[in-house]
Amino acid sequence: MKTFAIQPVDRSMQPAIQHKIDNLNKPKGSLGRLEELAMQVCLVQHTLSPSLAHPCHLLLGGDHGIEREGVSVSPREVTWQQMLNFTRGGGAVNMFCRQHRFTLRIVDVGVDYDFSGVDGILDRKIARGTANFLHGPAMTEEQFDRALQVGSYLVDHCVAEGCRILSIGEMGIANTSPSSIWMHLLTNTPLEECIGAGAGLNDEGIRHKYQILSQAVSNYLHNTPNPEQSTTRPLVYFGGFEMMAAIGAMLRAAGQKLIILIDGFIMTACAMAAIRLRPAAQDYMIFTHCGDESGHKKMLDAIGAKPLLHLGLRLGEGTGALCAFPLVDSAVRMVNEMNNFQGAQITKYF
Amino acid sequence: MKTFAIQPVDRSMQPAIQHKIDNLNKPKGSLGRLEELAMQVCLVQHTLSPSLAHPCHLLLGGDHGIEREGVSVSPREVTWQQMLNFTRGGGAVNMFCRQHRFTLRIVDVGVDYDFSGVDGILDRKIARGTANFLHGPAMTEEQFDRALQVGSYLVDHCVAEGCRILSIGEMGIANTSPSSIWMHLLTNTPLEECIGAGAGLNDEGIRHKYQILSQAVSNYLHNTPNPEQSTTRPLVYFGGFEMMAAIGAMLRAAGQKLIILIDGFIMTACAMAAIRLRPAAQDYMIFTHCGDESGHKKMLDAIGAKPLLHLGLRLGEGTGALCAFPLVDSAVRMVNEMNNFQGAQITKYF
Repeated sequence: MKTFAIQPVDRSMQPAIQHKIDNLNKPKGSLGRLEELAMQVCLVQHTLSPSLAHPCHLLLGGDHGIEREGVSVSPREVTWQQMLNFTRGGGAVNMFCRQHRFTLRIVDVGVDYDFSGVDGILDRKIARGTANFLHGPAMTEEQFDRALQVGSYLVDHCVAEGCRILSIGEMGIANTSPSSIWMHLLTNTPLEECIGAGAGLNDEGIRHKYQILSQAVSNYLHNTPNPEQSTTRPLVYFGGFEMMAAIGAMLRAAGQKLIILIDGFIMTACAMAAIRLRPAAQDYMIFTHCGDESGHKKMLDAIGAKPLLHLGLRLGEGTGALCAFPLVDSAVRMVNEMNNFQGAQITKYF
Repeated sequence: MKTFAIQPVDRSMQPAIQHKIDNLNKPKGSLGRLEELAMQVCLVQHTLSPSLAHPCHLLLGGDHGIEREGVSVSPREVTWQQMLNFTRGGGAVNMFCRQHRFTLRIVDVGVDYDFSGVDGILDRKIARGTANFLHGPAMTEEQFDRALQVGSYLVDHCVAEGCRILSIGEMGIANTSPSSIWMHLLTNTPLEECIGAGAGLNDEGIRHKYQILSQAVSNYLHNTPNPEQSTTRPLVYFGGFEMMAAIGAMLRAAGQKLIILIDGFIMTACAMAAIRLRPAAQDYMIFTHCGDESGHKKMLDAIGAKPLLHLGLRLGEGTGALCAFPLVDSAVRMVNEMNNFQGAQITKYF
């Protein structure tokens, strides 16, 4: 954890950036959220001429022991089947990466499958799925550190290629469960308000999920002295390897001053965890989407994040983050390409 | 008006389209609004393999007599100055068209300026601005018909090039005023709820705008026998040439089974008018953005339209419509490129 040094954004250029934005040939503020995005990107990059070069998407896969308790509508095998599908270009994440020209890296951080001989999946496997957190910690402290490092090194690789904007998605059946528990424990929101349908549970399924997660939290609190004194404890106890790698990637990306696109419920939970570990990381994050998953809006509110899109997506894979990319691109184009009043010879109208 | 024949969308393929969407390798419904968009585009094009070939953006310019009453924060000259700026590529509409590869047509339908010798502006001028509707109708019936035809012919030109998706924007200082009055008269919403800040009026400016528009409506009702019996009467009395051309373009585009991207407050007012004239036109429209202009949400509600984006844009030019294009593109890519469960060899999980 000591390696994740993050500087808060340097705000000294804020007046100069605002002056540039206000003098583009449009009524002041009339490009709304795009102007806010432009400000953020310029601040992060400490420039009046921002760049979104080499966009990169990390698709992180991992399985979850808690899946054994029937908390997800989908069986565990869907994780590895989808990972293979991604290597063939047939997933949602593939088409959105093609559409927006993201380099896609598919990474096995902890899928319960042997991908030997499969091209297109980076092998960063910590273990074949986490342990079932109904009965004990999902992973060891050592596995936690290794998974963080996996994410961190992936970002270093992107940066070496010139990447300035990172998007992160996940594939891991049952990973709304740890996300809900993190939300519950890190924001003190009642557990039932943190639990939703995931990929498509019915009401009975949601009740069962609540019972299982409630029991798991109760076991955790019973076995953990002073649980409120540690941020990492609930991460280690309930998290997934792909989620830890995502946190590591976010922290390293913030340290490297990348723009980070935060996807839906699960990635928001990871972002929240990253912010608890390193508050300055939030300066680098763009929250892209508020989905239908119960609690997502509350979690975003708890962070103070205002998502860009409301499209009812609940697929994961980083699809919401990718869908929001063109808006960030528009904001950057605005700063770089739009004429100012003087250049356009237009009467400045206030 | 007789030339605008529009067929409602043929829904016979709806079950086949839904079957295709439901069998793509994702939890059912998990791509949310994108799935709804995909259904609409497939229905409009009556196909399982939709296309958004040759996207085209019409930027329609016109001036308004009512501008003389100080209802806008910007002076009239900004209309022609911005039109010239667009020919040089320096406007917001230019950069978004470049970003999303739209062919941009800049059309003078009624700007108060002589563009002789200027390259890049199509001359379809009806007159150098409308008459001031505080004192009488903004245009004649004959001008109304001609402006509709301007829009219609522009669409025919796009269709001849293979265009399947049309976006429309406007440049016309003071054109929130006719839009507010249309909303008031066509939806029976109190006038004060239809009036907002436009490009940046302060409270005093909004009060003045309300007084002027209120007087204009009062004059209109006083001089018009049975005003509620005609949809075209308020259009002719208050409208702008660029707005009429937009309506003509929308109606012709619907007749030609194009997808039509509807922008912000002014284009929503035009869409509402088009729908009143030809209700079937709505099947072809995608409402892209709900802006901050007071009344926009109410007008969208009155139409039963659910906008895609909420970005606080209030620039016009069709910027909201262009920003929403990638989402429609994503929806089409989903239908065309995403693998199904069988092809991906994935357990169908419900």
